[in-house]
Order: sequence, then C-alpha cells, then structure tokens
Amino acid sequence: MNEIKIFSPATVANVACGFDVLGFCLDSVGDDMVIRKTDKKGIHITKIEGFDLPYEAELNVAGVSALAMYEDAKPDCGFEIEIYKNIKPGSGIGSSAASAVGSVFGMNELLGRPYNKTQLTEFAIKGEAIASNCEHADNLAPALFGGFTLVKSITPVQILEIPSPDDLYATIIHPQIEIKTSESRAVLPKKVPLTDAIEQWANLGSLVHALHTSDYNLISNSLNDVIVEPYRSQLIPHFNEVKQAALKNGALGAGISGSGPSIFSLSKSSQVALKVKDAMNKIYSKTGIKFEIHISKINTQGVKII
Amino acid sequence: MNEIKIFSPATVANVACGFDVLGFCLDSVGDDMVIRKTDKKGIHITKIEGFDLPYEAELNVAGVSALAMYEDAKPDCGFEIEIYKNIKPGSGIGSSAASAVGSVFGMNELLGRPYNKTQLTEFAIKGEAIASNCEHADNLAPALFGGFTLVKSITPVQILEIPSPDDLYATIIHPQIEIKTSESRAVLPKKVPLTDAIEQWANLGSLVHALHTSDYNLISNSLNDVIVEPYRSQLIPHFNEVKQAALKNGALGAGISGSGPSIFSLSKSSQVALKVKDAMNKIYSKTGIKFEIHISKINTQGVKII
Repeated sequence: MNEIKIFSPATVANVACGFDVLGFCLDSVGDDMVIRKTDKKGIHITKIEGFDLPYEAELNVAGVSALAMYEDAKPDCGFEIEIYKNIKPGSGIGSSAASAVGSVFGMNELLGRPYNKTQLTEFAIKGEAIASNCEHADNLAPALFGGFTLVKSITPVQILEIPSPDDLYATIIHPQIEIKTSESRAVLPKKVPLTDAIEQWANLGSLVHALHTSDYNLISNSLNDVIVEPYRSQLIPHFNEVKQAALKNGALGAGISGSGPSIFSLSKSSQVALKVKDAMNKIYSKTGIKFEIHISKINTQGVKII
Repeated sequence: MNEIKIFSPATVANVACGFDVLGFCLDSVGDDMVIRKTDKKGIHITKIEGFDLPYEAELNVAGVSALAMYEDAKPDCGFEIEIYKNIKPGSGIGSSAASAVGSVFGMNELLGRPYNKTQLTEFAIKGEAIASNCEHADNLAPALFGGFTLVKSITPVQILEIPSPDDLYATIIHPQIEIKTSESRAVLPKKVPLTDAIEQWANLGSLVHALHTSDYNLISNSLNDVIVEPYRSQLIPHFNEVKQAALKNGALGAGISGSGPSIFSLSKSSQVALKVKDAMNKIYSKTGIKFEIHISKINTQGVKII
C-alpha cells in the first residue's frame, strides 16, 4: 500500500464543563486527505483545496505533525500530502486538529502502524501548537480516538476514552465570523473563584459518571460551564438566544464549541437534534450573518481510511 | 419494631482531587447509636458516651437532623437517641456527619422508611450545618449511601453513587491534635489559578473514570490535589513525611481527609494497606503526638442496622 485516502473528523472541545480536557468526535464534518509514500525523501504538501493554507511543511499544521513523526521514524521514503479541507480554520470545531491528526494517522498506516494512538497524539500536538501557540490535545484526542475523550495530561500524553450512550447526537452551528484565538484567550481570567471551580469539577465528574451510566438526565444536568462561557459567550453573536432555543427544543445542553464561534448542543435522538437545528436556523437566518449547521452522531471511530 | 441499634460509619471527604464533592465510606470506624420510639413527643437525647457533647437536641448535630425530619414527618410519637461516639469530633473523618446521618437513618427505619436516602441527606445537612457553619454533604453522602459518592449539588440534593473496585483499602492516621474548622477554611484562597483548576478537574474526571473501570494505576495517577493540599497540609504536622512514606510503601495515593488533621491513603489490597499503616506508625511514634491508625475496606453499604 503506497497511498491512502483518509477522513479526519471535526471535533468539539471543552463540552461545557470540561474546559481544556474534554472533547468529542463528529461524524458528518471533516477533512479528506490523501497520503502517499514517495521515493523522494521528506514531507511534501502537494495539494490544498478548500482554504488558503501554506504549502511549506514547516508552516502547515499537517506538515509540522508529519515532520515530527518523520524525524522520529526516519523511514526510507518520503510522503506527499493532499489536503481537501472542509473544516474552516478558526471555526471552533477542531480544524487544525483534523489536519494535524490526518497526516500522522495516514503515514502511520502506510508505515505498518509502528505507533499507537498516544504516540500519534504526541506528534500531532506539535502541529496543533503552531496553530494555537500552545500545546493542547482536547481536539486531537477525540479526532484520533473517536468518541468522548478526557485529556488527563499532555506531559506525558495520557488520553482516557470515556464511553457514551448510542443515541447521542450533536447539533453545531458555525457562524461565519472570525474570533481571533488571542482574543478568546485574552477574555479569560487568570484566576477563578474557588466556589466556581468546585461547581465546574462537580459537573465534570458528574458528566463522566453520566456517560458511563448512559444517564441522559444527568448528562443534561452536568452540561454547565460557570468558568469560561460567561466570558467567551460575549464574543459570539446571539449565543444566549441560540442556547436557550436549543434547550427549549429538547437539547440536553448547549455551549461554546472549543474557543468558538461555533455553538454545540447535544440531544438524545436525531429527531431532537433536527428540531434543535431548525430552531438555530430560525435565529441565525434573521441576523444577516452567514452560518452553517451540522448534525452528527457521536463518531466513536475517529480518523479513518475511506 | 420500637428500638434499633445502628452503626453510623466514619467517612473520608475530598479524596485529594474532589474537594467539597467527593467522599468514601469506612467500615472499621464509626459510631453506634440506639434510636427508640417513645410515646412522649419530641426528640430526646438520653445518653452520650465517648465524648462530651450537648444533650439539648437543638444544639446537638444528631438532634438537629432528627428535628428536621421530625418536623417534616410529624409522627404520632417521639424518639429517644443514645449516642455511643467513637469518632472524635474534629478528626476529619466525618464525626458530625455520622451523628447527623445516624439519627435520621434510624428514625426512618422505625417509621417504615417514608424517606429515600436523598431526602435523608436533606435532613442530615441541617445537622451537619451546625457543626461546620455551612451546608455541605461530602461526608453525609458516603455515610448514607456507602461506597464512593459525588455530591453533584446540594440545592437540590443530588448524590451520585460511583462504583469502586473490590480490592480497595484505606489506611487513615488521625493525629490527636485540634485544627479549628475556621482555621482550615481561613487558609484557603478565595480564588485559584485557572491552570490549577483545570488540572484538578482533569484529575477528578479521571478518578471517576478510573473507579468505573477498576483501573488502579489511573486511580493512583488521579489522586492529586493541587488546590487545597498545598495550604492545609501546613497545618498537619509531618504531613509530607507520612504521604511520602505511604506512597513509598505502595499506596495508590494519599492526602488530607476532610479538613484534617487525619491523613488518608488508598491501597490495592489489605496487605499494602497494612504496610502503609506500619510506615505511618513508625513516623508518628517518634513525634510525641498521640495518634490512631485505622485500616478499612471501602464500606459499600453505609449506615446500617446492627
């Protein structure tokens, strides 16, 4: 096998109560990538469609993670990477993570899987870091492992795979506005009230328990963010309106996807997720802001060969 | 049935990474109580052995929780309470919680169980509040439900029962010194760094997952407290020495029990718990400070009739 085509999925990080550690994987949105073994040594990005991104491997998220792996594996070949990007950079649903994950997953397959997913996460972190200026894995982990993941730590990389009930669907609205990562970081306080932190970890512990026990009511009760949402939601037009409409239409919960501007909700059943989509659509249709809405089952597989 | 004798267990709250929300129940330490139906109306504490505590129901933890239930149930009888206190007040292993839980559990049994455990928690909170000047349930919940519990919220009371592996044992050393609750609260900061809070909720989420999956290594990796221990451990003589000795002798983790001064550790198997006991004993024997050490299996039943 010298060439494979892969699907690298979009992901939702933070998930209300799990800022910086929790994430889940989407099914219906993601990038396609072709990875090809070549005689010519090195990493070469030969095609990028969808968005305007750098072709130089050292400047491209997929290239940097590929180089990190390439320098470790020292294979007797090179790799070409084609990127068919569907996830808009800066959307808040793991665009850079999908790129970082896709290249290392594909190369690993072509090399006969010398690395496990934890090791692939380590390489992918290097790519993710050039997009966000810091090493984090809350989008990488669900893109690689699928399902819900908890990033226990990144030094060393320790990813926990949290089970989730079968009938869980996400609805995600992506307003086509740009929030600079620097801005979404700047609004966060360096210190938080201990009482708020306690409430947040009660919710996260509770959500992990709820996912293990397929307790939809408890999932719903746990999807609260008292730490980040009060600050970042101000950067997202009509956030509260969208969130309230989602809840009113039966969603278990809603919140900011990653650092925004996308807003996610979780629902029990595709029917409810569809109702939530209609409600979100109605609100944003009036705003004049361009947007996309995705419905997705939780993707338990993660990145895959297609 | 007009009289029952019950065992109301000691408990460990906080459990390193779960400040204010997590707790577990002990088997080998606890108070005995006799609850008796009487024709004479009202709540009457008729005997207290072990420690010097008030006989006036309105001033006694067991009395206050009993009164809260009594006023709700409005039964056609009264109750006498005898308290055989083995858990020293202020020890950090849920002395007041055992009292608060014992009276309402016993009365509920004698009345034919009109209340569930969540409702009993609500009454017991009223008793606990007069001991600690605030409403909390992180000791009450494990005393009532047994095992590991997570207090999702107290308004309304929502307690989650977290499963735990069979071979988990606690070793607890109780230095016979007094730390005032007011002092142990005063040392805590009102605000905490967001990065520390993130580490804490990663650990708590991880511990809940580890308990669900009986992953002893992950239990061990998760038992870290970056929020409270740095402050409160300074109030406990030889804390670090005891903690390090526990870890060196095979404990999965160790930390402050409740607000101290007791120090708990968790071990896989009773043999390791015994080694940890010996190591703790060796350290404290040299200090001149009186102490007690308990080894206990995790008590999955909680308060019970004996």
